[in-house]
Amino acid sequence: MPPPKVSGLHRRSLEPIDTPSRLLLGPGPSNAHPTVLEALSRTPIGHLDPLYVELMGEVQELLRYAWQTDNRLTIPMSGTGSAAMEATLANTIEPGDTVLVAIKGYFGLRLADMAGRYRANVVTIEKPWGEAFSLAELEEAITAHKPTILAMVHAETSTGVCQPMDGIGDLCRQHDCLLLLDTVTSLGGVPLFLDAWKVDLAYSCSQKGLSCPPGLGPFTMGPRAEAKMMGREGKVPNWYLDVTLLNQYWGSDRVYHHTAPVNMNFGMREALRLLAEEGLEAAWARHRGNAERLWSGLEALGLELHVPEPLRLPTLTTVRIPEGVDGKAFSLHLLNKHGIEVGGGLGALAGKVWRIGLMGYNSQPNNVDRLLNLFETELPAFGNGAPTTAAA
Amino acid sequence: MPPPKVSGLHRRSLEPIDTPSRLLLGPGPSNAHPTVLEALSRTPIGHLDPLYVELMGEVQELLRYAWQTDNRLTIPMSGTGSAAMEATLANTIEPGDTVLVAIKGYFGLRLADMAGRYRANVVTIEKPWGEAFSLAELEEAITAHKPTILAMVHAETSTGVCQPMDGIGDLCRQHDCLLLLDTVTSLGGVPLFLDAWKVDLAYSCSQKGLSCPPGLGPFTMGPRAEAKMMGREGKVPNWYLDVTLLNQYWGSDRVYHHTAPVNMNFGMREALRLLAEEGLEAAWARHRGNAERLWSGLEALGLELHVPEPLRLPTLTTVRIPEGVDGKAFSLHLLNKHGIEVGGGLGALAGKVWRIGLMGYNSQPNNVDRLLNLFETELPAFGNGAPTTAAA
Repeated sequence: MPPPKVSGLHRRSLEPIDTPSRLLLGPGPSNAHPTVLEALSRTPIGHLDPLYVELMGEVQELLRYAWQTDNRLTIPMSGTGSAAMEATLANTIEPGDTVLVAIKGYFGLRLADMAGRYRANVVTIEKPWGEAFSLAELEEAITAHKPTILAMVHAETSTGVCQPMDGIGDLCRQHDCLLLLDTVTSLGGVPLFLDAWKVDLAYSCSQKGLSCPPGLGPFTMGPRAEAKMMGREGKVPNWYLDVTLLNQYWGSDRVYHHTAPVNMNFGMREALRLLAEEGLEAAWARHRGNAERLWSGLEALGLELHVPEPLRLPTLTTVRIPEGVDGKAFSLHLLNKHGIEVGGGLGALAGKVWRIGLMGYNSQPNNVDRLLNLFETELPAFGNGAPTTAAA
Repeated sequence: MPPPKVSGLHRRSLEPIDTPSRLLLGPGPSNAHPTVLEALSRTPIGHLDPLYVELMGEVQELLRYAWQTDNRLTIPMSGTGSAAMEATLANTIEPGDTVLVAIKGYFGLRLADMAGRYRANVVTIEKPWGEAFSLAELEEAITAHKPTILAMVHAETSTGVCQPMDGIGDLCRQHDCLLLLDTVTSLGGVPLFLDAWKVDLAYSCSQKGLSCPPGLGPFTMGPRAEAKMMGREGKVPNWYLDVTLLNQYWGSDRVYHHTAPVNMNFGMREALRLLAEEGLEAAWARHRGNAERLWSGLEALGLELHVPEPLRLPTLTTVRIPEGVDGKAFSLHLLNKHGIEVGGGLGALAGKVWRIGLMGYNSQPNNVDRLLNLFETELPAFGNGAPTTAAA
């Protein structure tokens, strides 16, 4: 047969890309550090190149530092944070395992959804969006359901709540239960001590506290979770995220699994290098200081913060949209007139809050002041029946 | 409890990244086009930003052009080509479905492994590595096994074989079977007509014919495959790759699924823009011309090509390592002394061939000539008992 003719139906003649330089103060992505963007644009090298293999080891070590863990199986998954989230579940759940998910926001719901897809017996406990779990509540649920895994979110991006971790790891060990923790919005910005907290499985993302663009999902698995994975019957029901295979590539064997996203890992290496250079204590203190500057500034303007102070995340603040204010119109105005992105509410908080992120490279006093100034001078035009014509 | 102390055990003080500029003439990644690398390093924007949403539409349209398909569900998966591969299977297989995998190399084996993880009844037919299937062979297997899906590789990266596609689509329709095609090493470099060939599911990667770094996996699904997916009982057993959810983000609803790898998509948009600017016919002719230049040059040097000419892939050439030559030492020499990467054999061809890629931006006559010159002048030192001291 003669070959078909090429159709031009979907051919487009486009101008070169020309995206604007935004200040991303939403729930993520956050702005990347300039040297991370430079690293990203280097010429690729092969995923089995000895120089790349060396870089892989550096990324692993620096991730261990950032998470404060000695876990051997600490790697960036070749997908976003959600892929790393799924990896924690896919590798450890066997059909019928009881997984207890402590839900206090959108990402808890996602954990429950994912766990169900791996045929777990999913049991949930819930708290209103904006609160955290007490140790007693967790203990009661663990005692009642005897789960194999307790899955919960440390830094709930949908609510701005930071879950206190005291005692949870010990509780899980007493009940022979793995502790799985979402650290997407805490890694690099909020104190995290995975090993001291006895966390068995954790995941994060590249685009928040690490000042890297989205595209990689840091993943870590401790010895107890590894033992559960190695003892499973049959293959992990997810090839791309199968840690038994990935370990042959990241471990000393260097067996080809998939072609690594080398440029994203160039960026990740630079992002982690910068974090190690600053030091965790300094990075955490910087995030805390700039968050407090934001909180007091917003409260001085008469705005209400959704989360009580002791539970507030330094990286992500939920601000209640005042009655009569068109919150969506104001955030569109910030984006279109000032190039600043602020997030809206998700799930139960949709339409009720703005979400303001101060993460990684963006956690700087001048960013806080710029945003506070716009809330002070331009928000009044959007509320209480005032005209909203400035909105796009 | 007082917070734990930060440990410096895994803290490393590293120099800024300093990877060399390699010429990547292996099976991929290939070098990215310079303007793609520039696009990659732009400031991120939000994954729900109106400007990003516009860019998503452009990427989809240009992918349809590159694949010659009208499929609505044409998107880049937020992972590498292997993630897109898994997406084709995960969304369409229901437990117990018979999946026939036509294996003629490494990536056919991978398809079979993945399909089994989704609880398919996997049936395989095999050909020696370096051959292709005849229509009669496929017909016999389809008639015998009555599969729901026939999965096969168009451009087998492990062998350098291009599968002739005449009649396969019609055969599958006659037997009410979906046709799933791996186009990882053909998209952008080898004639591909998904709709004319009646392909129902296909996937590819970013780092070969598209001149982009690795990290995205183009995915497409036609109406027959979509109907199968929509009719399934229960959720897709893979959250990250669930096209029913992804479609709500890529479709007009724009419902948040995961935080898109925005910078990788900046690069993808530029890569596809360049391909559309050149035009498919011109790009395919360029790949063909440079491959023929390589083939005749290698044969003039007395080297043997593993695949007979009519089945040869223009993007990936397998060259037999002559008897007595230390193939691994020669490729290490090329890498360490000349900064050129050439691939080794995989699976059944390990130690038997070199794999030379001329893909996307790298398909240029000067690259061919540079490599041929090194084969001519430096290979003799590595063979037939000659000293191999030049190897690293």
